[in-house]
Amino acid sequence: MALKKKAHGELIVLSGPSGVGKSTVIAELLGQRQDIYFSVSFTTRKPRVGEADGVNYHFVDRAEFEGMIERGELLEYAEYVGNYYGTSMKIIQDKLASGIDVLLDIEVQGAAKVRAKCPEAVLIFIIPPSFEELSRRLRGRNTDSEEVIAGRLTKAREEYAQISNYDYLVVNDKVSEAAAEIIAILTAEDCRARNRMHLVEGI
Amino acid sequence: MALKKKAHGELIVLSGPSGVGKSTVIAELLGQRQDIYFSVSFTTRKPRVGEADGVNYHFVDRAEFEGMIERGELLEYAEYVGNYYGTSMKIIQDKLASGIDVLLDIEVQGAAKVRAKCPEAVLIFIIPPSFEELSRRLRGRNTDSEEVIAGRLTKAREEYAQISNYDYLVVNDKVSEAAAEIIAILTAEDCRARNRMHLVEGI
Repeated sequence: MALKKKAHGELIVLSGPSGVGKSTVIAELLGQRQDIYFSVSFTTRKPRVGEADGVNYHFVDRAEFEGMIERGELLEYAEYVGNYYGTSMKIIQDKLASGIDVLLDIEVQGAAKVRAKCPEAVLIFIIPPSFEELSRRLRGRNTDSEEVIAGRLTKAREEYAQISNYDYLVVNDKVSEAAAEIIAILTAEDCRARNRMHLVEGI
Repeated sequence: MALKKKAHGELIVLSGPSGVGKSTVIAELLGQRQDIYFSVSFTTRKPRVGEADGVNYHFVDRAEFEGMIERGELLEYAEYVGNYYGTSMKIIQDKLASGIDVLLDIEVQGAAKVRAKCPEAVLIFIIPPSFEELSRRLRGRNTDSEEVIAGRLTKAREEYAQISNYDYLVVNDKVSEAAAEIIAILTAEDCRARNRMHLVEGI
């Protein structure tokens, strides 16, 4: 699959509540599909233990972030639990034009903005098997206070109301299965007739 | 994948020109996805060497076929290179309602009728790597006269004009790769958010 050079890359948006295990699924996915470019977001939130600048996020302060907003450099941005998160436009446009698939890890507000600007983007929402399991995963992370965890769970319930705006829904029960489903989705999107008309003789 | 019982099966339509190797791809696909029900079409064409009644087709005469048309028993039917081909409605409806995916091997006229009656059907068109290769495969089959082969090639060119009505396009270069792409398409369709809303708590 994905052996043939494509005319345009796919813009893939992954969303899902805090604690669902998105980073682990993404790591598994990128391990198997090394041709995908993972877009590193900009954020004003503090790095967690083990997170590195330029790898997990580009960590910037509010003044820098607000400068990028003013200069129109962001494809999308949103404020989430008190911090800014945003995606740089130029790198993504360049990759897509070179036929490279681009993966964005963004929350529901940002995803809605990407959909509005790029209707052909592929939107995938990841849910946990249950809210109970989500709560367990958030506590297991040992990074947030009970108050922050409660806020994340409330936020998750709000986010669920946006799932119908997504193309695909993946349940992260086992990471390998969730990653396999996302890889199947990307293969299927490559197979879309509208993305392959250049392979049809005489048309 | 496909471990969870589904509320409704997917109706999957495969089309492609005579000689593209659809039967081989379907055999590979059904070997790997034994949960799929392959709908055996009715036809008035003569069996080829090795074809068995009830396996490749239900072989019937024109009077029987026209009886089924009159009694409204067909989901779709079409005349193709002088013979009728058609799909029985009832079996398919029962399978889909039981959560079983149903695969139809039908030509472009029939596929358009299925789309009109079942807008949620998944339409996949299979092409050969080139017309030259298609011509080679048709001659290699040793079943048709040069005149019939010429008719099939002309027909193939006409069918290509309908590809934009299909959701997906698969190139049958290597059978295993074509089957793998179709399996990925079916997995992706299972992941569609609209097909999985029953997995979302609180909605």
